[in-house]
Amino acid sequence: MIKEKINQAAGIMREEGIDLWLTFVRETEAVSDPALDLILGTNCTWQSALLVPAGGKPVALVGSLDETRIKETGAYQVIGYKQTIREVLLEQVEKHAPQKIAVNFSTNDVISDGLTHGMFLLLRKYLEGTPFADRMVSSENLISKLRGRKSPEEIRRIRKNVELTEDIFDRVTKFMKPGMTEKEVAAFILGEVEREGVETSWGPEECPAVFTGPDSAGAHAGPTDRKIEKGHVLNIDFGTRSEKYCSDLQRTWYFLRKGESGAPAQVREPFETIRDAIALAAERIRPGMEGRQIDTLARSYITSRGYEEYPHALGHQVGQRTHDGAGMLCPEWERYGNLPYLKIEEGQVYTLEPRITIPEYGVATMEEIIVVRADGGEFLSHPQTEIILI
Amino acid sequence: MIKEKINQAAGIMREEGIDLWLTFVRETEAVSDPALDLILGTNCTWQSALLVPAGGKPVALVGSLDETRIKETGAYQVIGYKQTIREVLLEQVEKHAPQKIAVNFSTNDVISDGLTHGMFLLLRKYLEGTPFADRMVSSENLISKLRGRKSPEEIRRIRKNVELTEDIFDRVTKFMKPGMTEKEVAAFILGEVEREGVETSWGPEECPAVFTGPDSAGAHAGPTDRKIEKGHVLNIDFGTRSEKYCSDLQRTWYFLRKGESGAPAQVREPFETIRDAIALAAERIRPGMEGRQIDTLARSYITSRGYEEYPHALGHQVGQRTHDGAGMLCPEWERYGNLPYLKIEEGQVYTLEPRITIPEYGVATMEEIIVVRADGGEFLSHPQTEIILI
Repeated sequence: MIKEKINQAAGIMREEGIDLWLTFVRETEAVSDPALDLILGTNCTWQSALLVPAGGKPVALVGSLDETRIKETGAYQVIGYKQTIREVLLEQVEKHAPQKIAVNFSTNDVISDGLTHGMFLLLRKYLEGTPFADRMVSSENLISKLRGRKSPEEIRRIRKNVELTEDIFDRVTKFMKPGMTEKEVAAFILGEVEREGVETSWGPEECPAVFTGPDSAGAHAGPTDRKIEKGHVLNIDFGTRSEKYCSDLQRTWYFLRKGESGAPAQVREPFETIRDAIALAAERIRPGMEGRQIDTLARSYITSRGYEEYPHALGHQVGQRTHDGAGMLCPEWERYGNLPYLKIEEGQVYTLEPRITIPEYGVATMEEIIVVRADGGEFLSHPQTEIILI
Repeated sequence: MIKEKINQAAGIMREEGIDLWLTFVRETEAVSDPALDLILGTNCTWQSALLVPAGGKPVALVGSLDETRIKETGAYQVIGYKQTIREVLLEQVEKHAPQKIAVNFSTNDVISDGLTHGMFLLLRKYLEGTPFADRMVSSENLISKLRGRKSPEEIRRIRKNVELTEDIFDRVTKFMKPGMTEKEVAAFILGEVEREGVETSWGPEECPAVFTGPDSAGAHAGPTDRKIEKGHVLNIDFGTRSEKYCSDLQRTWYFLRKGESGAPAQVREPFETIRDAIALAAERIRPGMEGRQIDTLARSYITSRGYEEYPHALGHQVGQRTHDGAGMLCPEWERYGNLPYLKIEEGQVYTLEPRITIPEYGVATMEEIIVVRADGGEFLSHPQTEIILI
């Protein structure tokens, strides 16, 4: 998969007018560049430079002790150094005489932003006095397109994790009872994850995240000792990772009170609003649109029905990582930088995950996964259409 | 331990004339700042700023969805934001009106260099037009002193891992036989690690690293299918991690050939040179010396006996991380930046790990661990004095 992605990069570099792609890292066990999963698959110890020219062979400049291990990846010609990377780096850059060098930093996209500021200062120092010091641009567009455009094999792997996650949700439905704590539900799920021999999509302290009832901890918090009660809306945010790819899904349950045969209207209506906002977004998404347009569509559908807007993006990409890079379905908020304005592309895989807080009950939220096709979003998940009753 | 370390920071900030310590991060599951292990102990999602003033309460500015989780650390007053961190950040910085702001970047020290270049550009943009934009300095000295000065509790935890590692080395001595592969030896050790309920100090692909015989893969490579033969020198680089602290040790074995009762002189002499270089370094190290002085002492002892110098540093610090920050015993090579010139401090914990390649036999290398006291290095490990015979 690493060679496949590096080969794919050359084409995107020509689209973007990039002559040389330079990924500069060191001691990646301490501070890693997320792009290494995509283009290296192992760690570097001393200052290391991965050079991918638009034409020609990829070259890795690494500390002499790392040579053997980097060679084993089979994706690079490896040149080792002992005291300093400066000379070999200059030599390689001069060889390609690039007009535009894409470097691994980005204000907008965290997973294109693996260059630390200290390493940027070093790189600028090494290139000082050459014409190349002023030819560095962000590699965010390149990485974004490279991650975004999923091959059929990549989609197969994501779908496999989606299906396993849905299957585990079915087991959870049979397991959960009023009186259980969020932590007990999470422990059950982690047991199933272990039994399946896979990993969780993000850290197991918050994957699964389990929220029951009103005034729960809210997104991005771990499960608590709070007990499930009748009349609670409960939701779970969870995904599995296997073959290096992830899923990321949410489902919503309702615990019936005595005498109830369905969820009350105050619960059902916001649930259905979420469900229909997701369906609308999947139907209308097209390559060439900007992410913010789809976010606005879902967001305004929800507010037009009298609910508060969700305090986050409609969706993010999924792939090797749960948050797989630039290109988000997000509003024009400053913290999202240029992401709302990036063009949606065919083959990208997005989550759709609006939420509505239901006073006195809990939070309604589903998270589905689609792949963008020429004529709309194809669901990789089986969208939840009814609130699950227990 | 997090509160203890943050309290310790205030004193060091006064030494260094720092008014405010600012750690700026985002999506730390994707790109982490190693300092977070020391001062936060959990992840941040949106752009987040950890502010520690020289006097006054630590404040964490985090995305609203992270508020609950960061509050649970108990170490910070937490202020959440929704659309942008800009206003709350400016407000907090202005409140302290710092003359000198230590920020999480460093050219020299990888584990003080958690700020990505993209995040640096954002921070500069947020502070633009204020006097604070020009008051940012590297927090490397602060972090280096904070990590380096180990408390008795920190030393107890390191020692515990050192002792477990030595114990596992004893079990390996009983296990290893000619004909076994490096991978089989590594698998045995990982089994012991699992049985003890601890972790390896670094990634289990290369921890333990096992090298047998001449022309093995060299440092920083994983174990291979190469078989142990009689007449091989074998070494293992390995450490355990528990209670959040690490060990990192190396030992050397020799496999006797038919009729041998000890290692031949060509093996024994370089081994003893290594051993004596370590003893010399431990005896002579003192607070206030520069790291390069101790490296030179060991390096020149080895070359004076006619051997090649080792192609790396004599030693690094050990603590929560295997490579626990600035302050190294290293030569004046460009790739080490200013590290050779940093002052050794009391309470720092260093490895001592010279090596000599023995033609036709393998590599002799030990790695011991000392804590720096006023009158020299106190061994936390039990130094290997004789090559272990099998």
